[in-house]
Amino acid sequence: MSDFFKGLSKVKYEGETSKNPLAFRHYNKDEIVAGKRMEDHIRPAIAYWHTFAQEGGDPFGGRTFDRPWFDKGIEGAKLKAEVAFEFFDLIDVPYYCFHDVDIAPEGATLAESNKNVRVIGDIFARKMQETGKKLLWGTANLFSNRRYMAGAATNPDPEVFAYAAGQVQNVLELTHELGGENYVLWGGREGYETLLNTKVGQEADQMAKFLSLVIEHADKIGFKGQILIEPKPQEPSKHQYDFDVATVYGFLQRYGLESRVKCNIEVGHAFLAGHSFEHELAVASSLGMLGSVDANRNDLQSGWDTDHFPNNAGEMALAFYYILKQGGLGKGGFNFDAKVRRQSLDPADLLYGHIGGLDTLARGLKGAAALIEDGEFDKLLDDRYAGWDNGLGKDILGGKLSLADIAKKVHADGINPQPKSGRQEYLENLVNRFV
Amino acid sequence: MSDFFKGLSKVKYEGETSKNPLAFRHYNKDEIVAGKRMEDHIRPAIAYWHTFAQEGGDPFGGRTFDRPWFDKGIEGAKLKAEVAFEFFDLIDVPYYCFHDVDIAPEGATLAESNKNVRVIGDIFARKMQETGKKLLWGTANLFSNRRYMAGAATNPDPEVFAYAAGQVQNVLELTHELGGENYVLWGGREGYETLLNTKVGQEADQMAKFLSLVIEHADKIGFKGQILIEPKPQEPSKHQYDFDVATVYGFLQRYGLESRVKCNIEVGHAFLAGHSFEHELAVASSLGMLGSVDANRNDLQSGWDTDHFPNNAGEMALAFYYILKQGGLGKGGFNFDAKVRRQSLDPADLLYGHIGGLDTLARGLKGAAALIEDGEFDKLLDDRYAGWDNGLGKDILGGKLSLADIAKKVHADGINPQPKSGRQEYLENLVNRFV
Amino acid sequence: MSDFFKGLSKVKYEGETSKNPLAFRHYNKDEIVAGKRMEDHIRPAIAYWHTFAQEGGDPFGGRTFDRPWFDKGIEGAKLKAEVAFEFFDLIDVPYYCFHDVDIAPEGATLAESNKNVRVIGDIFARKMQETGKKLLWGTANLFSNRRYMAGAATNPDPEVFAYAAGQVQNVLELTHELGGENYVLWGGREGYETLLNTKVGQEADQMAKFLSLVIEHADKIGFKGQILIEPKPQEPSKHQYDFDVATVYGFLQRYGLESRVKCNIEVGHAFLAGHSFEHELAVASSLGMLGSVDANRNDLQSGWDTDHFPNNAGEMALAFYYILKQGGLGKGGFNFDAKVRRQSLDPADLLYGHIGGLDTLARGLKGAAALIEDGEFDKLLDDRYAGWDNGLGKDILGGKLSLADIAKKVHADGINPQPKSGRQEYLENLVNRFV
Amino acid sequence: MSDFFKGLSKVKYEGETSKNPLAFRHYNKDEIVAGKRMEDHIRPAIAYWHTFAQEGGDPFGGRTFDRPWFDKGIEGAKLKAEVAFEFFDLIDVPYYCFHDVDIAPEGATLAESNKNVRVIGDIFARKMQETGKKLLWGTANLFSNRRYMAGAATNPDPEVFAYAAGQVQNVLELTHELGGENYVLWGGREGYETLLNTKVGQEADQMAKFLSLVIEHADKIGFKGQILIEPKPQEPSKHQYDFDVATVYGFLQRYGLESRVKCNIEVGHAFLAGHSFEHELAVASSLGMLGSVDANRNDLQSGWDTDHFPNNAGEMALAFYYILKQGGLGKGGFNFDAKVRRQSLDPADLLYGHIGGLDTLARGLKGAAALIEDGEFDKLLDDRYAGWDNGLGKDILGGKLSLADIAKKVHADGINPQPKSGRQEYLENLVNRFV
Repeated sequence: MSDFFKGLSKVKYEGETSKNPLAFRHYNKDEIVAGKRMEDHIRPAIAYWHTFAQEGGDPFGGRTFDRPWFDKGIEGAKLKAEVAFEFFDLIDVPYYCFHDVDIAPEGATLAESNKNVRVIGDIFARKMQETGKKLLWGTANLFSNRRYMAGAATNPDPEVFAYAAGQVQNVLELTHELGGENYVLWGGREGYETLLNTKVGQEADQMAKFLSLVIEHADKIGFKGQILIEPKPQEPSKHQYDFDVATVYGFLQRYGLESRVKCNIEVGHAFLAGHSFEHELAVASSLGMLGSVDANRNDLQSGWDTDHFPNNAGEMALAFYYILKQGGLGKGGFNFDAKVRRQSLDPADLLYGHIGGLDTLARGLKGAAALIEDGEFDKLLDDRYAGWDNGLGKDILGGKLSLADIAKKVHADGINPQPKSGRQEYLENLVNRFV
Repeated sequence: MSDFFKGLSKVKYEGETSKNPLAFRHYNKDEIVAGKRMEDHIRPAIAYWHTFAQEGGDPFGGRTFDRPWFDKGIEGAKLKAEVAFEFFDLIDVPYYCFHDVDIAPEGATLAESNKNVRVIGDIFARKMQETGKKLLWGTANLFSNRRYMAGAATNPDPEVFAYAAGQVQNVLELTHELGGENYVLWGGREGYETLLNTKVGQEADQMAKFLSLVIEHADKIGFKGQILIEPKPQEPSKHQYDFDVATVYGFLQRYGLESRVKCNIEVGHAFLAGHSFEHELAVASSLGMLGSVDANRNDLQSGWDTDHFPNNAGEMALAFYYILKQGGLGKGGFNFDAKVRRQSLDPADLLYGHIGGLDTLARGLKGAAALIEDGEFDKLLDDRYAGWDNGLGKDILGGKLSLADIAKKVHADGINPQPKSGRQEYLENLVNRFV
Repeated sequence: MSDFFKGLSKVKYEGETSKNPLAFRHYNKDEIVAGKRMEDHIRPAIAYWHTFAQEGGDPFGGRTFDRPWFDKGIEGAKLKAEVAFEFFDLIDVPYYCFHDVDIAPEGATLAESNKNVRVIGDIFARKMQETGKKLLWGTANLFSNRRYMAGAATNPDPEVFAYAAGQVQNVLELTHELGGENYVLWGGREGYETLLNTKVGQEADQMAKFLSLVIEHADKIGFKGQILIEPKPQEPSKHQYDFDVATVYGFLQRYGLESRVKCNIEVGHAFLAGHSFEHELAVASSLGMLGSVDANRNDLQSGWDTDHFPNNAGEMALAFYYILKQGGLGKGGFNFDAKVRRQSLDPADLLYGHIGGLDTLARGLKGAAALIEDGEFDKLLDDRYAGWDNGLGKDILGGKLSLADIAKKVHADGINPQPKSGRQEYLENLVNRFV
Repeated sequence: MSDFFKGLSKVKYEGETSKNPLAFRHYNKDEIVAGKRMEDHIRPAIAYWHTFAQEGGDPFGGRTFDRPWFDKGIEGAKLKAEVAFEFFDLIDVPYYCFHDVDIAPEGATLAESNKNVRVIGDIFARKMQETGKKLLWGTANLFSNRRYMAGAATNPDPEVFAYAAGQVQNVLELTHELGGENYVLWGGREGYETLLNTKVGQEADQMAKFLSLVIEHADKIGFKGQILIEPKPQEPSKHQYDFDVATVYGFLQRYGLESRVKCNIEVGHAFLAGHSFEHELAVASSLGMLGSVDANRNDLQSGWDTDHFPNNAGEMALAFYYILKQGGLGKGGFNFDAKVRRQSLDPADLLYGHIGGLDTLARGLKGAAALIEDGEFDKLLDDRYAGWDNGLGKDILGGKLSLADIAKKVHADGINPQPKSGRQEYLENLVNRFV
């Protein structure tokens, strides 16, 4: 047992009246909601990068955190892994997620880097065995190293594509071996800094080829998990190709990849793309593309990715509404892609952030389940569209009428539809009953 | 001849040194640029709505303009048509565009409304015959009338869909009869005000059905023009389904409509979607979807559609770069979807707006043509991606290598790519040489 | 009794478990919170414009609402007044607010317009006598009429300034006679559409002069209410001078008016200015400028003033925190500057909007009161700054040390301060306990 | 002579037709514009931080630049100074600007850090003597070190304030000794990350005290330069107190400091605050607060500080319009607070960025001078406000009339002002003639 979390003990559910800042007030993992344990609905995961590798820097300032594993190479990485599993235990969350570079230092060559990743991977395997913790997803960091500054798959230099392929092979295989349930691709550099030096068509072809190769390799090694793209509109690049769910969907279809890939949707990325989080979920779900969630929130006044911990239960209730309606996230889950602020220096701050986040998710889940159980909301929605289930509506959608047929009918029947109230305020109040 | 433009005469090109505010300084329609008359490149069009139907209101204030045709029913509409063709002559632009409700008052029934449109359509036909003016595109306004408040094609009430079908049939046929070269669909209400009362999957199906019916009807009547969707992310709706080019592309593919439909891209809409204008053009062009342009600009600090006249020649140069590279807009053109400010009360202000806009387009066109003729820009771009034309790059894109093959190659050859300068500042300066 | 609200009855508090959509679940006006009736804390007011004069139009569509008083001149205005007081009774709110043009039709001359306002003012006086309803504030609409398109006080034409003065005199006097507790100035056109035709220094002088004249007149007639400026960054103008609280404060100081004027802060305007609502309240309170609140919310993805009803209890809790800490709003209150959506056609929708809004305010108030009563939050805040209360901190603020003295001390004492956790997540969780 | 810029030679003016990417095409320092050398108008300066200390990192990736002085402590700092003066010579710009931490490594104590700064300061003094280069301004970096994470002057810990005071004393004195013409304060951490742990009133008092101490010390040591605050709305903090020019002005007045402090206005910061650059200049100039400029541009789609090099001549023409109208920037100048992109790895890229920037400024300057010389623009502006120079307007501003007097006049004279065209498009075209 390391010293890092000395004095802190396992976080427990104590109920709404608890004043203990180190207890859950809403998140009660074994509580049954809508027929399932809360933990099985949420499938929460700790993000290795923000929790253990974040240094507290920002564009105008350097590291603020003081972690005993910083600047210590592979030995530091081992200590970090130790502390990570202690944290998984303390916060009592079943899953974690990682990038290769979060867990192990990069080497001078791909081989060396991959080997370092494997060293820590072995520790993970052992720890998982011991603790029962599970891997929600793995991913390769193809954006931080300067070699990727102009893209990984979309780099003008095919050797960079090749290097990235070698990195992904390693992480994908490790993910598979660790029983990871998903593999994620976030294309932070798959976009451009300036259109002036960019061929967008060429780069789309490269990106599709890369994804195809990953899918083929996953299938070859027998990886049954989900392959997920995580949309984000920009940052670090000026524009990223995986702008939002709708854009990713178009891209996948264009290259015939839509059946094998889903989306990992991040709250803050939705916001940065000009959407609400629930919008991205609703769209993805309607397209069969809702695979997993990166739980966080974005500062509402900041135009960059702030990765705050979620604390808006209402927002999460709408999220869970779409998730419950599609029967859950399947192999996906809620990864806390959230970081404590750079002023939150203390080990306990890592707990506070996740406690608040889990309580927020729990409130959202319970709210959504209650909303659905109540039934009025869904009934109002169905009633609103009922006209499409028969008569004119059914004939139109069923392809029985041409444009001219329909127009003729309007004239013949004197159709002159009168607007009906959309009842937005009524619905907002109704939802608020459950949040 | 009406009195409206009394004292104003046909705008002529006088060259850069002219101080005449009622002359063109850059737009010289017959000047040959890149092998074609300037007018044939730009194919400029006047927007009937902003130029003749706009009242000068905004969300906090009413009509400021005083036009003799306002509030005068079908007689007013006839006067408006008269003045419109006088304006086309004064500004010396070959094309115009219209919505049905711009040109004629709505009646109590669809039949009456359609008839009114036809009355003015007949005047248009005669005037076009007399003047040689042409119709760039027609469109039906399916967003202003309260019946469309919850959508036209995507309305929960199939009767609204039907009514919209009847309206489109009329405008599409009129457009065809007038020799219109394009038919545009802008779905201002095809989206939602609140997700709480909306089934996005259902509405997508409705929207696709509507578009299919329009395409079939267009084919049936022999309309050979382009069918164009105009993307916009929001406003008037909180969210519109045709968010941007990439989203429209995904939608079209999903329903197998991508071969018959292209995009009409508006500068300000690109901005509101979080993109640059040139981004939307580059993406559309790479997808074979760049059909036409709505020329304007958005105020850079305002979060709504401001429809200012274009005055940024640099932005237009980048636009023309993509247009020239794809061999022009074909049947598309540049429609001035721009309005004089609500304080610009005078008839002459309509001329100033368009003169500034045409001069800006002319500067952009000349800049792009010179940039391409110079050749360095394109050469740098080609050189940057040259690695994909043979060797490793070609093998990767050609599907000769699996992920594991590529990784093996990295290890075997010790591939360790070093970054090269992206030369953004160099390229910006290079472009600036031509603007 | 008019027919407008037929079938609807007075909204009552039924508690959290109520499923009655026409009952309050949190707002219980007589409940004592922090030593005062809930109603006396909130002092809620109905906005005449959004509730009775709004037509449901937007920039892309016309009127959707069908109100029996529309288009009926002064007789319609009388009916509207009748219905308004019925609504005040139904929703059981003690206050209302109005602009002159909301309540009565404009005439051909200022005299005629003012007279119309007075006709309705007399009805108000009688109704208020009968019902006990009160006026929170009055204001003159100096932005809708085309005469104000280039500003009222800041118009380049002094005659427009004069006309505005005549309008304000009338409304200010009426407000005073009706016992109005505040008079508000919102300068929707006091700004510019383009800097190119604007002298900002000249316009600032005009605006200050106007405000001085209003203050003098208020004092002359014995008006003891607050005079309030309502900040907004832009819309309808491209830029408005009263951008935010800090800007208004600078303006007032520049012209020596800061002691007589406070701010009326609107949630949505704070958002549009790039601030959180609580920021504007905190800043205003720290400057002694927090006078009143316009309660609403802005759509988070829309870049214009959406005036939704409040439904975020957490946001309102932070607002009430600052209000309670300064001992309440005094003569100010919470005006619902919020409108039902244009699809919310039914009279009942007006109730749903306000019910949701009042419940949200009540939750916020109760949360803030509990947060303060709990005490930990304030204690943490005081502890954080305790260093400034004595020793070095006190000496610095007390002016006992020069820059050189302080520097010398750093060197002499080897001062090398170590950062402490800012505990943001802890505090967010703490606040969430009360929301 | 170091090797860093090997192969590159002094940049010269070659005129518009030059195709040499390493030549100026518009910036001709000795050319007389509006009666003064171009260089004397612009007073351009190189930013030490972006040009020599920037590493090419971003929030998602590390260093991309490979500079021989990185990671080499004080010896590296000496080499950096060497190269800096070589660059000043190559780019042929008379001024530079620095923060203390740009030029020298921080030590373990304040004394050590200050000493390091002095070591390089001595080199600067010698180099300036040799080359004739001058210091536009100096500043202390009070935001990067973790000790400042919660503010410098506004830190809850007075010892941090003290440490900052010691740092500023050193840089202010060095600036004075090097003949620096301005001293700048940018409060990147003077704001908050969360209101929840912040007393805004307390922090304002601290900030004012700090500024007062700086002013006193400047006066004491005989520093005659300008003291400048650089506004920015947020980033790195969630909110910064020096939000924009108007906010800074209010702050200065509140504490009686407005006569000794002006603003250093940055293009990108204006944009991030929701303003145009010209707006901030116009406002500052009207308040007597326009002291200096940080020249750059912000990416229009990115919500953070991108610090691109300026390349919009039109924007700069409007800037120079306000500068020329107030008789120039006095002791201020144009500091290129701009950085080459992180992909622009080559030493030559530093030249391309600055060449493009200087050419853009030159075009702007020439455009503004021509616009003013032409005279029509100013005449139109004066004519628009002429009504305030006599008659009613003069009486109003002169305080001769009360609100009631003015209203009486409206009634008596039947004043009913009619709107006149604001001529925005005309003016935009007019300005475009000169850009």
